Amino acid sequence: MGWRLGLLLLHVLLCLVNGVYSGRTSSYVRTEFPSTDIPLESEWFAIPNGYNAPQQVHITQGDYDGKAVIVSWVTVAEPGPNEVFYGKNGHQYDQKAQGTVTNYTFYDYKSGYIHHCLVNGLEYDTKYYYKIGSGDSAREFWFETPPAIDPDASYTFGIIGDLGQTFNSLSTLQHYEKSGGKTVLYVGDLSYADRYQHNDGVRWDSWGRLVERSTAYQPWIWSAGNHEIEYRPDLGEISTFKPYLHRYKTPYLASKSSSPMWYSARRASAHIIVLSSYSPFVKYTPQWTWLKTELKHVDREKTPWLIVLMHSPMYNSNEGHYMEGESMRAAFEKWFVKYKVDLVFAGHVHAYERSYRISNINYSITSGNRYPVPDKSAPVYITVGDGGNQEGLASRFNDPQPDYSAFREASYGHSILQLRNRTHAIYHWNRNDDGKHVPADNVVFHNQYWASNTRRRLKKNHVRLEHLEDLMSMF
Amino acid sequence: MGWRLGLLLLHVLLCLVNGVYSGRTSSYVRTEFPSTDIPLESEWFAIPNGYNAPQQVHITQGDYDGKAVIVSWVTVAEPGPNEVFYGKNGHQYDQKAQGTVTNYTFYDYKSGYIHHCLVNGLEYDTKYYYKIGSGDSAREFWFETPPAIDPDASYTFGIIGDLGQTFNSLSTLQHYEKSGGKTVLYVGDLSYADRYQHNDGVRWDSWGRLVERSTAYQPWIWSAGNHEIEYRPDLGEISTFKPYLHRYKTPYLASKSSSPMWYSARRASAHIIVLSSYSPFVKYTPQWTWLKTELKHVDREKTPWLIVLMHSPMYNSNEGHYMEGESMRAAFEKWFVKYKVDLVFAGHVHAYERSYRISNINYSITSGNRYPVPDKSAPVYITVGDGGNQEGLASRFNDPQPDYSAFREASYGHSILQLRNRTHAIYHWNRNDDGKHVPADNVVFHNQYWASNTRRRLKKNHVRLEHLEDLMSMF
Repeated sequence: MGWRLGLLLLHVLLCLVNGVYSGRTSSYVRTEFPSTDIPLESEWFAIPNGYNAPQQVHITQGDYDGKAVIVSWVTVAEPGPNEVFYGKNGHQYDQKAQGTVTNYTFYDYKSGYIHHCLVNGLEYDTKYYYKIGSGDSAREFWFETPPAIDPDASYTFGIIGDLGQTFNSLSTLQHYEKSGGKTVLYVGDLSYADRYQHNDGVRWDSWGRLVERSTAYQPWIWSAGNHEIEYRPDLGEISTFKPYLHRYKTPYLASKSSSPMWYSARRASAHIIVLSSYSPFVKYTPQWTWLKTELKHVDREKTPWLIVLMHSPMYNSNEGHYMEGESMRAAFEKWFVKYKVDLVFAGHVHAYERSYRISNINYSITSGNRYPVPDKSAPVYITVGDGGNQEGLASRFNDPQPDYSAFREASYGHSILQLRNRTHAIYHWNRNDDGKHVPADNVVFHNQYWASNTRRRLKKNHVRLEHLEDLMSMF
Repeated sequence: MGWRLGLLLLHVLLCLVNGVYSGRTSSYVRTEFPSTDIPLESEWFAIPNGYNAPQQVHITQGDYDGKAVIVSWVTVAEPGPNEVFYGKNGHQYDQKAQGTVTNYTFYDYKSGYIHHCLVNGLEYDTKYYYKIGSGDSAREFWFETPPAIDPDASYTFGIIGDLGQTFNSLSTLQHYEKSGGKTVLYVGDLSYADRYQHNDGVRWDSWGRLVERSTAYQPWIWSAGNHEIEYRPDLGEISTFKPYLHRYKTPYLASKSSSPMWYSARRASAHIIVLSSYSPFVKYTPQWTWLKTELKHVDREKTPWLIVLMHSPMYNSNEGHYMEGESMRAAFEKWFVKYKVDLVFAGHVHAYERSYRISNINYSITSGNRYPVPDKSAPVYITVGDGGNQEGLASRFNDPQPDYSAFREASYGHSILQLRNRTHAIYHWNRNDDGKHVPADNVVFHNQYWASNTRRRLKKNHVRLEHLEDLMSMF
């Protein structure tokens, strides 16, 4: 228990100073792999053996509450079967679900046969095995369903963004696998296939094979980034998000969204809202209308942790993409404060940054209010665009560090969010530190709905003791 | 010449004080008609006589440079012919163009047969007569092409927004007809059919008949407002802008846009850019990408007057829709200043407002700059959302009037922009004043590209004399 106690004391320390210490710009500079993609012929992109074997297998949540998954895969030689065989007892697949198949072209690229199959009616907190493909080429995987929706359901999410397919990307994946994360909240920019001539879809395929080691075994909750837009009128490709929408499904209908680009899903004690930075979002638009309604549906008595995902961050003090999120901030920040969103995760900027709880909702173009100010009802904004893609790191931060920025560092990595109960969550940012699992930013988050009473007590000079007790109760 | 001299002296006076006087909030309150729509059975919505007679006739520019129009109309009993017969010699229609027909449903409404016909290869500065429909039901109209693209081509535009179909709307139309406007720049919100149960398309039809008196005879350059979105997932209508896109065509392909929602058109000495407030517009999106390129194509040597249309204003000090345009301002204001846009027209707010030349492009979320400041490279922002629809006037302005606001008044009306030559334009806002044609805001605009030398001279204490000479040269 020694290390646990050490960790506990570290958390206590961080909690006590949280909100009062000055922001930190880490001077750490890691030795990075070159920002070039893994060669196509690499073993990391290996095509599975067997005629027409399913490849690029990935799953995502398939419903509103976590009792379904969508299983997706690609076959190349021929469409092949659409069924998913599954069951709870090892390799006895006593249940079957029927999927669909689609494909698409992008300029001179022709995709394989992309299968999507909804597997629903699952039991909570259960390990399921599943099999896809046929005969000798069939492949077997497993996944675990989350606990039932409950305010005290513990659950661990990973947060990854801007992953790409370099050796840094692989390092991020490998580190994430050691973290204990059960589901990935993905904050956009997947394959970076659009960086190749004619947006070469071959790099969508290689990416799908690279990440299969994780995506076949646990849900990745998808949101789209600018590299998914793939708007190429010069190639006659004028629809947006074409490869992404064909390859990656989302359970948008379950949350009454009319577009796969924005939706929500509840999982354990979390209500996760996925927004689309590059779809219409201003007042009167479908996304705005949907979000307005969905926020009213959030029930913090059942899912205390209200988490928002988007690609372009609303708060970012890196020179890269500075203030690109202003348009969405102008549209949505007021709601995030009103509904006491716990955490807003974004990607886009290839570095890590965490804000304090601040808001700029009193900014008026005709008044003197314009700075982000401390605001206990505001979310913490976290940018995790440091997955490791070929564009490299965004290493130039604005100087001085603005007051709203709590921690920032330009290293590759991912984050882990451990929801412990209705009041507390433990959060780490994990830097890909030369093969070791090294957390570099650690915070205990108080739930914005349930912990407000606790926080009021803290104000009355009972800080240390009560806080310690709260923390003790978590272990 | 007496009244001309009087007008001239008024302009001189206004020019001299333009930019230095304080903003004015007009206290004028007009006696308005009730904000209720004209009854469907009214003569103003009369269906033309004859079996299957074309109705709701409207034209818009059909190409990039003004040598084409798109003629549109609706038939109800059957599709009928798609041809437009046209010619320069009165009623001898010696030329013919072939159109297409479409229709749509919206919940339980089924549209008539909507015809669109491109008439191209026209001569500049020429009156054309045209005929549509067949037999006894045929109808005849005319239009005038603009002068050739030329920096000194004089041309008069009307600007109308948020028109609707009340008696106030009719009054605006009637006043506009007396103004001498040759083409309407329409800043969004057309019929307000979405205010009826199930977005009743019948009110799209009645609107088309109401405005035909102008739209059949001169091009209206369309942009879409929030009332065109018509997103009704509760009715199973999840595509956006469905009736608008079926009924109102734009020449978007001619300006290499990939969407009818944003495009540009050149006319006489003007380059008109139409933006879509409710389509994606942030960095990386198609609209952003298109605008970035299109602004580089603007040739002020040929078309000195750079005009932008949008629905939701970037600068607005009315309580109605205050700061709703912030998202687009964050995306585009820098470009408007960089490219010295002359005028940005918007609607949305049911009142009139004109700004000074100001910008807020140095606003930074981490710095002290946040106010709009005087900026000679900035556009003048004009809100003309006062067409007269059933929602009534937005009569509550922020108090005090912000520094950036030059003139504002909550009355119905329209604007007229007379481009005189490459350096000067005369602008009026015309209030629908109890049946009289009463301009209520008058400005002489110096062109942002050509008049900059003149403006530098003005600074050197030669203000009065030179300015007077400039003005004299216009008459």
